[in-house]
Amino acid sequence: MHYITAGESHGPQLTGIIEGIPAGLTIDVEKINQALANRQGGYGRGNRQKIEHDQVEIVGGLRHGVTLGSPLALVIKNRDHAHWSEIMNPTSPATLANTVRRVEHPRPGHADLVGGMKYRHRDLRNVLERSSARETAIRVAIGNICEQLLATLRIQMIGYVQQVGSVKVDDGISPALNVTQIKEQVEANDLRILDQDKVVLIHDLIDRTKRAGDTLGGVIRVMVENVPAGLGSYVSWNTKLDAKLAGAVMGVNAIKGVSFGDGFKDATNLGSHVMDEINYDAAHGFSRLTNHLGGFEGGMTNGMPIIINAAMKPIPTLYKPLQTVDVNTKEPLKANVERSDTTAIVPASIVVENVVAIELAKAVTDAFESSNIERLKDEINRYRQELVEY
Amino acid sequence: MHYITAGESHGPQLTGIIEGIPAGLTIDVEKINQALANRQGGYGRGNRQKIEHDQVEIVGGLRHGVTLGSPLALVIKNRDHAHWSEIMNPTSPATLANTVRRVEHPRPGHADLVGGMKYRHRDLRNVLERSSARETAIRVAIGNICEQLLATLRIQMIGYVQQVGSVKVDDGISPALNVTQIKEQVEANDLRILDQDKVVLIHDLIDRTKRAGDTLGGVIRVMVENVPAGLGSYVSWNTKLDAKLAGAVMGVNAIKGVSFGDGFKDATNLGSHVMDEINYDAAHGFSRLTNHLGGFEGGMTNGMPIIINAAMKPIPTLYKPLQTVDVNTKEPLKANVERSDTTAIVPASIVVENVVAIELAKAVTDAFESSNIERLKDEINRYRQELVEY
Amino acid sequence: MHYITAGESHGPQLTGIIEGIPAGLTIDVEKINQALANRQGGYGRGNRQKIEHDQVEIVGGLRHGVTLGSPLALVIKNRDHAHWSEIMNPTSPATLANTVRRVEHPRPGHADLVGGMKYRHRDLRNVLERSSARETAIRVAIGNICEQLLATLRIQMIGYVQQVGSVKVDDGISPALNVTQIKEQVEANDLRILDQDKVVLIHDLIDRTKRAGDTLGGVIRVMVENVPAGLGSYVSWNTKLDAKLAGAVMGVNAIKGVSFGDGFKDATNLGSHVMDEINYDAAHGFSRLTNHLGGFEGGMTNGMPIIINAAMKPIPTLYKPLQTVDVNTKEPLKANVERSDTTAIVPASIVVENVVAIELAKAVTDAFESSNIERLKDEINRYRQELVEY
Amino acid sequence: MHYITAGESHGPQLTGIIEGIPAGLTIDVEKINQALANRQGGYGRGNRQKIEHDQVEIVGGLRHGVTLGSPLALVIKNRDHAHWSEIMNPTSPATLANTVRRVEHPRPGHADLVGGMKYRHRDLRNVLERSSARETAIRVAIGNICEQLLATLRIQMIGYVQQVGSVKVDDGISPALNVTQIKEQVEANDLRILDQDKVVLIHDLIDRTKRAGDTLGGVIRVMVENVPAGLGSYVSWNTKLDAKLAGAVMGVNAIKGVSFGDGFKDATNLGSHVMDEINYDAAHGFSRLTNHLGGFEGGMTNGMPIIINAAMKPIPTLYKPLQTVDVNTKEPLKANVERSDTTAIVPASIVVENVVAIELAKAVTDAFESSNIERLKDEINRYRQELVEY
Repeated sequence: MHYITAGESHGPQLTGIIEGIPAGLTIDVEKINQALANRQGGYGRGNRQKIEHDQVEIVGGLRHGVTLGSPLALVIKNRDHAHWSEIMNPTSPATLANTVRRVEHPRPGHADLVGGMKYRHRDLRNVLERSSARETAIRVAIGNICEQLLATLRIQMIGYVQQVGSVKVDDGISPALNVTQIKEQVEANDLRILDQDKVVLIHDLIDRTKRAGDTLGGVIRVMVENVPAGLGSYVSWNTKLDAKLAGAVMGVNAIKGVSFGDGFKDATNLGSHVMDEINYDAAHGFSRLTNHLGGFEGGMTNGMPIIINAAMKPIPTLYKPLQTVDVNTKEPLKANVERSDTTAIVPASIVVENVVAIELAKAVTDAFESSNIERLKDEINRYRQELVEY
Repeated sequence: MHYITAGESHGPQLTGIIEGIPAGLTIDVEKINQALANRQGGYGRGNRQKIEHDQVEIVGGLRHGVTLGSPLALVIKNRDHAHWSEIMNPTSPATLANTVRRVEHPRPGHADLVGGMKYRHRDLRNVLERSSARETAIRVAIGNICEQLLATLRIQMIGYVQQVGSVKVDDGISPALNVTQIKEQVEANDLRILDQDKVVLIHDLIDRTKRAGDTLGGVIRVMVENVPAGLGSYVSWNTKLDAKLAGAVMGVNAIKGVSFGDGFKDATNLGSHVMDEINYDAAHGFSRLTNHLGGFEGGMTNGMPIIINAAMKPIPTLYKPLQTVDVNTKEPLKANVERSDTTAIVPASIVVENVVAIELAKAVTDAFESSNIERLKDEINRYRQELVEY
Repeated sequence: MHYITAGESHGPQLTGIIEGIPAGLTIDVEKINQALANRQGGYGRGNRQKIEHDQVEIVGGLRHGVTLGSPLALVIKNRDHAHWSEIMNPTSPATLANTVRRVEHPRPGHADLVGGMKYRHRDLRNVLERSSARETAIRVAIGNICEQLLATLRIQMIGYVQQVGSVKVDDGISPALNVTQIKEQVEANDLRILDQDKVVLIHDLIDRTKRAGDTLGGVIRVMVENVPAGLGSYVSWNTKLDAKLAGAVMGVNAIKGVSFGDGFKDATNLGSHVMDEINYDAAHGFSRLTNHLGGFEGGMTNGMPIIINAAMKPIPTLYKPLQTVDVNTKEPLKANVERSDTTAIVPASIVVENVVAIELAKAVTDAFESSNIERLKDEINRYRQELVEY
Repeated sequence: MHYITAGESHGPQLTGIIEGIPAGLTIDVEKINQALANRQGGYGRGNRQKIEHDQVEIVGGLRHGVTLGSPLALVIKNRDHAHWSEIMNPTSPATLANTVRRVEHPRPGHADLVGGMKYRHRDLRNVLERSSARETAIRVAIGNICEQLLATLRIQMIGYVQQVGSVKVDDGISPALNVTQIKEQVEANDLRILDQDKVVLIHDLIDRTKRAGDTLGGVIRVMVENVPAGLGSYVSWNTKLDAKLAGAVMGVNAIKGVSFGDGFKDATNLGSHVMDEINYDAAHGFSRLTNHLGGFEGGMTNGMPIIINAAMKPIPTLYKPLQTVDVNTKEPLKANVERSDTTAIVPASIVVENVVAIELAKAVTDAFESSNIERLKDEINRYRQELVEY
């Protein structure tokens, strides 16, 4: 299984192709659209999100709502492309009229400057249109298809927010709650947090930060439950599934840190408090008494819930702009302000959840014969049973 | 560029093949052996390290000390294989005599149990011989060749220890020191730490932990300097170099968290304290005033030193053994004790440094025409000059 | 560089994404459309081609006609989807009305039967809609972009027809003609053949075959000139460029054989008649006196024109249908007739030319720093000069 | 599954690593050595083969004769390295004494000249030591492991010789013989041909060619039987298994053409003579009445035997040397004669057989869950049964 995306932030559309989804899977397009809506929500966002209501179209690989086994092509139209149809026109040659809105003042914390140097762009719009987090919309669409695939195999997941700026919501790494319970809690507020009592506090933090022209990051957690043991392998450095997940999560815009289970706390704790002791009962086979390691041992899933944490830096664009330099005149000045979210931690939690879904769906479909979803289900069921009987 | 390794902990040898090292590179084998010795050192290690003195042999791709451009084959003989020549014999059939030392009590925190389930092993030695951190020796050998390649291009790096258990040595993320200065400091003690004043304190912590039959993890930092801007790309989720580095570092045994620059602190700080403002002077071109982001923007190197942090969990094997279950009888019992380091944070810092070297060498050789090292040097020099003149 | 395509024959559109085209390349969309028209032409085709006039749209990665360095997304709408909008509807659930035109009689020589077994389809339309050669239209669009890239580097190519059924047009393997001259000749007739005197003969063969309800294959040749020596490498089995080209060409629908230069004749000839002797002159450096080996030695381009031959089997669909079996009733019967070309050798020559272009563009951009087309041009020029001075 | 090899022709050893062989597979090392002996045999070979008797050692991934699931490391020592220990010394610096036997006269038809230009070697020994067909020994060792894996799944194969120079032995493409019968026939002579009556004729051809100082190529066929339908896929250009096989076969030294089934004859025949009509009986399910297409439709195996043909050019090294140019003085002269086989068609047939085995084993292990051979067997059996019941 692999996928690729294309499209610029104000271009006509985002396009994605994913290959390797089994034939015979019924796709609920409304679920994809709901995930896209979730990605556009959350407290602390600016106005742009309000004008877009992303809708996916599937233009290949699907027939009568069921996958064919051929590559799936997905499209999300950019609704405000209408206002940019000249400036971002794919084919009409550059003119004085359509090259307004040039970007020549690279924004610190963005790809602007280095992207310009690497690709020899002098209008940095040619960089930021692609490096923008707008692209994550199509990753969410692809990820939701993967979530639907995983759900068919009874693998459930949720991404949510654990920390906004300096406010930690939940520090436990082995929550007593399951995915369904977490979902209920975090979808009951606009911060995707577990502790309803902290909503007002964090709203207030965001409001104050916004008034100060500043921005906030946070920490995201993704939990996945009912993953069979043995996905990934210890045999080589690049067969470890936790390593692949870490790469995928770090590949989300603005993520600067990734960890599993207790994560950086593991570095502090004594060994006797880190390992998850092994238990056995005949009905369920082997299990662990705790989950400090976040569901991974030796790069393999161990049957416990996967717990991934991701640190998101604050959105770099500030109303209180930072020092930069004009790439043409070389004059120092203040960076452009291009958008206006105070924090994007809520949408980022959706994106991280979805890239985790993609990697897990890939792990499953790469490991098992996956031409057809029913055959795959049968195989996974037999494999689960074998694990119980080990 | 890509590489693969093979070999079991007590088998005859570790073997590695790396393809894509340019022709014409002079390899100093003694430097590789020095890196291997560093990996075997450090306070807090058990006795096994003392009997091994790893030496690399290069058996392919090298002639008269100079690379040919063909794949390099590396061998590290396992010096104590002599004692295991029957038990780990590759070809002689299993007998009563050579199947002693079976492992049937999976150790929590290791690959043992899940490896047995996945591959259907009932003697878990068949798992742990490969999942053992012994394999990292050959990764260090490969990594050191990559470091020698990078050094030819004036890219320098160092891995060291920032935290042992709960003792933090250095919390600054933008150290005033360069690689050479750090190297001097961290090689002046057996903990690879910057602050000589903390050596006694940490020795004491390790000694006490050892007496208590417990183990310690820690935090590792790798710093790389003089990396040209523009390695990696923002254009796709899997072209981001920080994502690849995160994957490679998470692929090191016992690493549970990876971050860049300020890492998880970025989640806490305000945006105005996270971004690295842009500066310019004609002689050096663009630079940053700070390095909170650890040398990456948009998944690309930005010309500032790369700063990677890795959280290592404590070694799972404890003198104070944990609860497990016999995989055959299903009886609960205490896990086997197979080795005896109190902490492996020093060797892990060498390993992490070397896997970073491999990924960076890969990034450079994949990006530029790299058949011959002199041609590559010329290209990189021209590219660096172009960046200054942007 | 890599690419992927999606889309079914009667679905809404074909979609392709290609990543790795350098920034700064001006794309002439009309040239792509011309290549698409060429693919739809040629003597011996049925009626479907006449109703389609493929037009490419570029919906990502291009701005004002110039590549951005981000992935390019290409779309070709299927013009007759209007007539299939229910039957091939991606999302509306299956009903009695929209599941007419089921295919339950697998056609010998097509993917129908095995595709049904592998993916568990019982309506084989779910297979043939993707396995159809319709998909090659988007490969041609991608290939033409690659040809435009290669032309910027002065690499020129042409695909043409050497044999139709049993009629051989040109047997010489080292034609005195260059690409421009061949182009002129083969575009002067509707068979893409060099010898105008054989046009009537072959038209007659095709007409007779059509009347007999039968079909014809043929042999295609692709010639590429001005390729720098040293693309590909002998160092590993999977770094050989001729091997990659062979794979790509064999990946075109209906191709059953691939060879380079004299190809299968090399098996018959004596060694003294096969090797290309080496010459030298100061102005041009090294060259070969002949080109029996078709431009490859040791898996590397050797600076002589690349000569690739491909054997195409006849189109399997026959008016004179073959024995098959109903996949549901298991009754023997005659296979469905779904389309009506007598030979597709002309369009196949365009497709093969274009997949060769893709592999060569990949070889060039993978070998050299290719973020920006101007930088790439400079590098290639320096490399060419170095070869002359070797 | 993937593999890589390293090692030079006169270096200390050849090394190979293959990852992805299931755990639990019993490896018969003698079978590997027999395949290595077969590769060294055949009429028409020079003296070098007589001094070498290749023996494989397995130094990783195997314990007590059974695979562990970890990467397998294989070594074949070069027995005449003793005579080259200075000239090909990996580490001792170049001196006057150890740089004798320089090669400065590139041999036409070899990688020598282009390899020198690409990697900037002036002693072309640095090229030919790796580009030599010596490397295929380790590919055969890896391939034989794959054959043993496939045999466990009841997939059998044989490579043999169909043509030597201009003498065709067998032109039938759908032989009535099965693999076992072919094996008996072709192993009854030293040419690996089916027709014992042609042995004298071909011996005579080889003898005459040798006296004339010339060399011979030929055509190889590989047949594989009992391959389940549905390996590979039509869904994308690079999922087609015939395309991958074509690439792997073209990646064997001296191969210039590859085809399936009737191959280039398909280009000549009418469609009604090319397609393989479909049959059905309840006990065996679907089958084909003929096998013109060599076991592939739509890039997938169709359950019929796989038939691959490969055209081998004559060995370029001639006693009657060809024109070349000294790479340093630029003087024209006659090419070095480095070895002395008159034809290597017999060993090449073994090599091609083995690379086919590797690709098929890869296709199987990539498609199915392949951690353990018994689980894999069960899956394949269920899949085969499903195909019968389709």
